[in-house]
Amino acid sequence: MSKIRVGIVGATGYAGVELARILYGHPAVTISSAVSKNFEEKNISEVYPNLTGLLDIRCTGFDASAMSKECDVVFTALPHGVSLDTAAGLAELGTRVIDLSGDYRYKSVEIYEKWYGIQHTHPELLEKFTYGLPEINREIIKGSSFIANPGCYPTCCILSLAPLISAGVIDTGSIIVDAVAGVSGAGRTSSLPFQFTECEGNVKAYKVASHRHTSEIEQELSMMAGTPVTLTFTPHLAPIKRGILLTAYASLRESFSREGLEEIFNDFYKDEPFIRLRTGQRYPETKWVAGSNFVDISVTSDERTGRVVVVAAIDNLVKGTAGQAVQNMNIMFGLNETSGLKHPGQYI
Amino acid sequence: MSKIRVGIVGATGYAGVELARILYGHPAVTISSAVSKNFEEKNISEVYPNLTGLLDIRCTGFDASAMSKECDVVFTALPHGVSLDTAAGLAELGTRVIDLSGDYRYKSVEIYEKWYGIQHTHPELLEKFTYGLPEINREIIKGSSFIANPGCYPTCCILSLAPLISAGVIDTGSIIVDAVAGVSGAGRTSSLPFQFTECEGNVKAYKVASHRHTSEIEQELSMMAGTPVTLTFTPHLAPIKRGILLTAYASLRESFSREGLEEIFNDFYKDEPFIRLRTGQRYPETKWVAGSNFVDISVTSDERTGRVVVVAAIDNLVKGTAGQAVQNMNIMFGLNETSGLKHPGQYI
Amino acid sequence: MSKIRVGIVGATGYAGVELARILYGHPAVTISSAVSKNFEEKNISEVYPNLTGLLDIRCTGFDASAMSKECDVVFTALPHGVSLDTAAGLAELGTRVIDLSGDYRYKSVEIYEKWYGIQHTHPELLEKFTYGLPEINREIIKGSSFIANPGCYPTCCILSLAPLISAGVIDTGSIIVDAVAGVSGAGRTSSLPFQFTECEGNVKAYKVASHRHTSEIEQELSMMAGTPVTLTFTPHLAPIKRGILLTAYASLRESFSREGLEEIFNDFYKDEPFIRLRTGQRYPETKWVAGSNFVDISVTSDERTGRVVVVAAIDNLVKGTAGQAVQNMNIMFGLNETSGLKHPGQYI
Amino acid sequence: MSKIRVGIVGATGYAGVELARILYGHPAVTISSAVSKNFEEKNISEVYPNLTGLLDIRCTGFDASAMSKECDVVFTALPHGVSLDTAAGLAELGTRVIDLSGDYRYKSVEIYEKWYGIQHTHPELLEKFTYGLPEINREIIKGSSFIANPGCYPTCCILSLAPLISAGVIDTGSIIVDAVAGVSGAGRTSSLPFQFTECEGNVKAYKVASHRHTSEIEQELSMMAGTPVTLTFTPHLAPIKRGILLTAYASLRESFSREGLEEIFNDFYKDEPFIRLRTGQRYPETKWVAGSNFVDISVTSDERTGRVVVVAAIDNLVKGTAGQAVQNMNIMFGLNETSGLKHPGQYI
Repeated sequence: MSKIRVGIVGATGYAGVELARILYGHPAVTISSAVSKNFEEKNISEVYPNLTGLLDIRCTGFDASAMSKECDVVFTALPHGVSLDTAAGLAELGTRVIDLSGDYRYKSVEIYEKWYGIQHTHPELLEKFTYGLPEINREIIKGSSFIANPGCYPTCCILSLAPLISAGVIDTGSIIVDAVAGVSGAGRTSSLPFQFTECEGNVKAYKVASHRHTSEIEQELSMMAGTPVTLTFTPHLAPIKRGILLTAYASLRESFSREGLEEIFNDFYKDEPFIRLRTGQRYPETKWVAGSNFVDISVTSDERTGRVVVVAAIDNLVKGTAGQAVQNMNIMFGLNETSGLKHPGQYI
Repeated sequence: MSKIRVGIVGATGYAGVELARILYGHPAVTISSAVSKNFEEKNISEVYPNLTGLLDIRCTGFDASAMSKECDVVFTALPHGVSLDTAAGLAELGTRVIDLSGDYRYKSVEIYEKWYGIQHTHPELLEKFTYGLPEINREIIKGSSFIANPGCYPTCCILSLAPLISAGVIDTGSIIVDAVAGVSGAGRTSSLPFQFTECEGNVKAYKVASHRHTSEIEQELSMMAGTPVTLTFTPHLAPIKRGILLTAYASLRESFSREGLEEIFNDFYKDEPFIRLRTGQRYPETKWVAGSNFVDISVTSDERTGRVVVVAAIDNLVKGTAGQAVQNMNIMFGLNETSGLKHPGQYI
Repeated sequence: MSKIRVGIVGATGYAGVELARILYGHPAVTISSAVSKNFEEKNISEVYPNLTGLLDIRCTGFDASAMSKECDVVFTALPHGVSLDTAAGLAELGTRVIDLSGDYRYKSVEIYEKWYGIQHTHPELLEKFTYGLPEINREIIKGSSFIANPGCYPTCCILSLAPLISAGVIDTGSIIVDAVAGVSGAGRTSSLPFQFTECEGNVKAYKVASHRHTSEIEQELSMMAGTPVTLTFTPHLAPIKRGILLTAYASLRESFSREGLEEIFNDFYKDEPFIRLRTGQRYPETKWVAGSNFVDISVTSDERTGRVVVVAAIDNLVKGTAGQAVQNMNIMFGLNETSGLKHPGQYI
Repeated sequence: MSKIRVGIVGATGYAGVELARILYGHPAVTISSAVSKNFEEKNISEVYPNLTGLLDIRCTGFDASAMSKECDVVFTALPHGVSLDTAAGLAELGTRVIDLSGDYRYKSVEIYEKWYGIQHTHPELLEKFTYGLPEINREIIKGSSFIANPGCYPTCCILSLAPLISAGVIDTGSIIVDAVAGVSGAGRTSSLPFQFTECEGNVKAYKVASHRHTSEIEQELSMMAGTPVTLTFTPHLAPIKRGILLTAYASLRESFSREGLEEIFNDFYKDEPFIRLRTGQRYPETKWVAGSNFVDISVTSDERTGRVVVVAAIDNLVKGTAGQAVQNMNIMFGLNETSGLKHPGQYI
C-alpha cells in the first residue's frame, strides 16, 4: 500500500515537532511537506538536533496549492487566529485538514469570538469541521475531511466527565475542574514567565475562572448532557515539561461506592485502546502517560460529602495535541486506530 | 535582656533544621539544645553542611528533665505518634512546648484516633494545648504554655476560607479544596516515591478524599462557622522543594464582584503582618513566598457559576511549619510578632 | 522468521525496564522471561504503570536452567557482584549472555578486584566475554556468545577519545575527563542522597579521582594506544534524570585547527549509525540524545593552550546501558544493527 | 551611627534584586535609590512580588548627579558595555562605585576589547578601579573608592587556585578548569535557550575555549604567579537556578598527599570568614552554598597521575555577584566584613 503523504504547517513549534516525532515512527505515513515561517529553508533537525540523522526535512514557506497536491492530509499546528485562513485555504482546495488550534472547534461563532477575542473569518466552515475526540465522536470522524483537534485541557476534562454525564449520575451544575499543566503548553516561546529561573520551583494558578478552554469544555459537555453545562475551571502551571494532571469534582445525584463509579467508567470505556482506568486507590501520575497517547483515569467516591472526584492524566503534547491528531488521521484513513501510537512513554 | 533559650527535638529533620535556620537569625533567641535520635553526638552542620561555621551545635539524645532546665521553650518537631509522649513529658515538667506534629491539634480524641489510626496516650492534655494559628487565635496563644502548631495544608486552607466563613457569605456545605505541595512535605525520608527520578517531571494526586488534614481543617472551620463543616480535599505532589499552592472553591450565598470579595478579605486581614492580599487578577505563586513566613492570597468571583475561588500560597516549611512555630513563640513571649521572620524569601 | 526469545534478569531496575521498553518496540524480538527478585509474581506494569496495556509481563524468580531453555539470549541487568554467579550460571549452560554489570568487563582479575573490592568468583570466564562497544569491537562481537556491556561513563569517554588516540595526535599522559551525569545512574534506589529534596537544584562532584569506571576507561584506551594510559576522571551529579555530558581534555602533539580535528573524527566514525558529529561550535546537549541510542560529539582546538577539548553526550540508560545492549544483540544475531533503536528521543 | 545610603543601578535585574535582598537585611545600610530603565516609576515589589511589604521602593530613571547626592555608594548592576559610561559618570562625580560588570576589571584595555568585542570608552579609569576579590586584595579594597566586582566564574576559579599558585606547587601551564553553572547566570532575559522547556533536564557546554571570563582568570592568576598563565576553561549549563560547581585540574610539581594539599589551603585561608574547606573526601555541593556568601572548597591529590583536583562551589548570585559586592562595601566603609552576609542559605 502506498503511504499516506502528510504535511505539517507549523512544523517547528512544539506541537509540530511532536507530530513529526510521532509520524516518523508511523508505518503508514510519509512526511511530504513541513512548513515553518520562522525557519523557512532550514532543516527541521537544525532546530531540533535530536532529529539529526532521522528527520532531516527542509522546511518551506506555506503554499496552499502546492501542499494540496503533495499531501493527502495536512496538520495545521498554528496559534489560534493564525490557523483561521491557513486551514480554510487548504479546506477550500479539498485537502483533508486536521487543525490543532481552537479556530474550528466551536459550533457557535459568538462563543468563539467572545472567548478568543478574535473575529472569525470563516464561520461558514465551522459546521464542516468535526470535533476530533475519538472516544466520543469516532463514527463522525470516520466520515470527516476536516477535523478540529481538541484542546489539551478539554480532552482530559471531557474524557474525565463523559461517563458520569452520560450515566446521568451527577448534578451538572456542580462541576469544578482543577488542572495542573506543564510548561510546554505555552509553546515554543521566549517570554519571561516561562524562563527556567521563573518556572523552576514554582507552582501558580492563572486565568482563574477565565481560561478560554472553559467554553470548549462546556460546549461538549452540554451536548452530551442535553442541557447547558456551566462549570468552574482553574488551570495551574507546574515545573514539568509535559503533562496535565486534572482533578474534577461533582455532586452525585445518589450515593455510590468507589466500585460503583468504577463500573460506570469501565462500561463507558471498555473497548477504548487509549483509556486506562486505575482502580483501588491508585491515582494517575503524569509520568505514567508522558510521551504516550494514553489517558489514565481514576474515580473516587467521597462518601462523606456525596461528591465524585475524578483524577486523570494525559501528556498535553500527545493525547492533548499531536497524538490525538494522529489518532484522528488513523480513523479518517481507515487505518488501525493505534497505528504509530502504541508506545509506552518514558517513565524515567 | 537575656535571650530566650530554646530547644529543638528532632533537630535534623527538615522541620527541625528549618527551625534552626530561622532561630539562628532571631535576635532574641539562643539555641541551647538540639536533640536528634539519628544523629546523636553529631554536629548539626555535619548533617546540613550549609550551616557549617554558623550553627555548629552538637546534637544530643532526648532527656526531658535536662531540657526542662536548659530551655525556656521546646519545639518538638517529630512525626505524629512520636510526639505524643515527648511533648507530654516536657509539658508535665512545666516546660513551654510548641509541638509541630498533629498529636495535640484536636479537641476530640475520637476524631484524632480515627484519622491517625493511633491511640492517643495523653487525651487529658488536649485541652491544655492551643491551636497555634495566630491570625485566628492570637489572644489565646498569648496566654498559652502549650501550642499545637497547625499543619501545613490546614494553615493555608483555614486562612483562605476564614474571611468568607466569618462573613457568612458562602454555603459551608459547598467547599472543595485542591492543593499542590512540594516534596519537602514528606520530610527527610529515603522512600522510593520521593526519589528524584520518581518525582522529577511528575505531578500526581494522593490520598484523595482521605488525607488526615481534612479533619483538622474541618474542626477549625466548624468552630468558626458555628456549625459542622464537611469538605472535599485533594492534595497533589509537584516537583518543587517548598511550597503549597491552594485553590479553594465555594458557592456564594449572594452575588459578589471581585472587588466586593477583596473587601471582605481586606477587612478581615487588615492588620496582619504576614498576610498579603493580591488583587486585580494577580494570583499567588509559590516563589513569591518560598523561604518566607508570608501567606499570599487572592480571591476571584466566578460570576458565571456563582462561586468564589480563593488561590493562596505559603511555604510549607515556614508559615506551614517552622516559621509559624516561631511566630507563636514570639507571641507567647511578648516579643514583636515578626521578630526573626520579616525576611523575603528567594524569588530565584 | 521466528522471533528471538529474550530474557531479562533484573527486569524491574531502571536498566531492566529500559531494556523492556526498547525491546517492546523491536520488530524481531519477543520477551519470553522477566526475572525480578523484588517483584516476583508481580506484573512489570504494576511496578511501572506506564507499561500497562503494552507490557503486562509477570516477573518470576531466577532459574538458570529454565531461562536457558526459554531464551535465545539473556540480559543480566544486575548490580556488580550480583551478576558474577548469575551470568556465569547462564553462560555455563551455553546461553548467550549480555551482562550489563562491571563483572565481566576486565581482562585483569586483579584490576577488577582492586577497583571493585570484590573477589571475582569466575575469573576463567573473563576471556570468554567480549567488551561490547560496537564502534570499536564490532567484528569480535559478531562471533561472541558472551558480552560485557560497557559502563555508561566508559562508553561516552572511550568514544570521545578513540579517534584521537587512534590517530596518535594526543599525549596519552595528559588526559583529563570531566563528566556530569543524571540521577538515574544510581539506579532504582531509596537512599537519601538521591531524594528529590536533596538532588533538585544541586550539582556536586563525587568519587573524585577514585571512580571505578576510571579503570575500565584506562583498560580500553591502553589497548587502543598500545601503551598504558592513566587519566584523571571526575564524575558529577546534576538534577536531570537521564544523560551524561562529558568534557575530555588532552594536549595535542602538534597544532590542529578545529576543522583538522573534526576531520579526524569524521574519518573514524564515517559509517557509524549512532555517532553524530556536531561541528562549527555547536556543542552536544543531553536533550539531543535523551531517550535515544545516539552519541553526539564535538571537538574543539584550544589553540591558545595546545589542547583538544571533546564534548560528548549520551543517554546513560540507552547508549550507556540498555540501548547499547540491544545494539550488541542485533550484531550477535546478524540483525540490522539499528533494529529497534532508530528512534529520536524526546527533546522536550 | 547614621546608615550608609546606597543606590542600585539595574535594580530589577537578577543581580540588582539580589543586592536589594541582601541589603534589606544589612543593619548598617539604607537603600536610598533604585534605578531601573525597564521599570521606571514601578515599584520593585511589583516586579518581584516576594518583596511586597518589605521592600516597596519606587524605581527611577538614571540621574548621575542626583544619585551622587543621595548615595554614599552606588552599585552598578548592568550588562557589560552598558556599565562603561554609567559607572564613569558616577566616578567622575566622586561617588563611590562598585561595578558588577566586566567593564572595569581589566588592567589592559587591549585584552578587554579583544574578549568583549567592545571599545572601552574610559580606559583612563581602569587604573582607578580595584579588582574586588577580598580574599586576595583586601588591603587595597580598604582604600579604594572604585571597585570592579569580579565575575562569578573568576571568583570561584581564582579562589580555587590561589593557594596552589601562591605556594608554587603546580605547573601553571597545566591548568584546566571545568565549571557547571545555573541558569540565573544568564540574567533576567527572555531568550529561547533559557526557557524552562529548553533547560529542564538538560546539561550542555557552551563557549568552549572561548568564554570571556578566561581572560579575567588569566589576568589575576598571572599577577599572582608572577608569570603569564594561560589555561583551558569550559563552562557548562545545568538546570539549577543558582550555583557554580567548579572542578580545576593542574599537574603538581612534586608529590603531595591529600592532607599535604589541605594544609596548603588551610594556611592560605585560615582567617577567611567566607571560605570553608571541606576535607576527608567530602566534596562541595551547590546546595551547601546556595543563598549564602560562602565558598566551599575541597582539594584532592590524584596520586596516580600526579595531579591536584580542586572542587569548589559558590552561589553565582551571592559570592559570585551581589554578596561579594556587599562584602566589598563592608570593607570600603570599615564595617565588619561579614555584616549582613552571615546567613546560611536554604539547603532545601
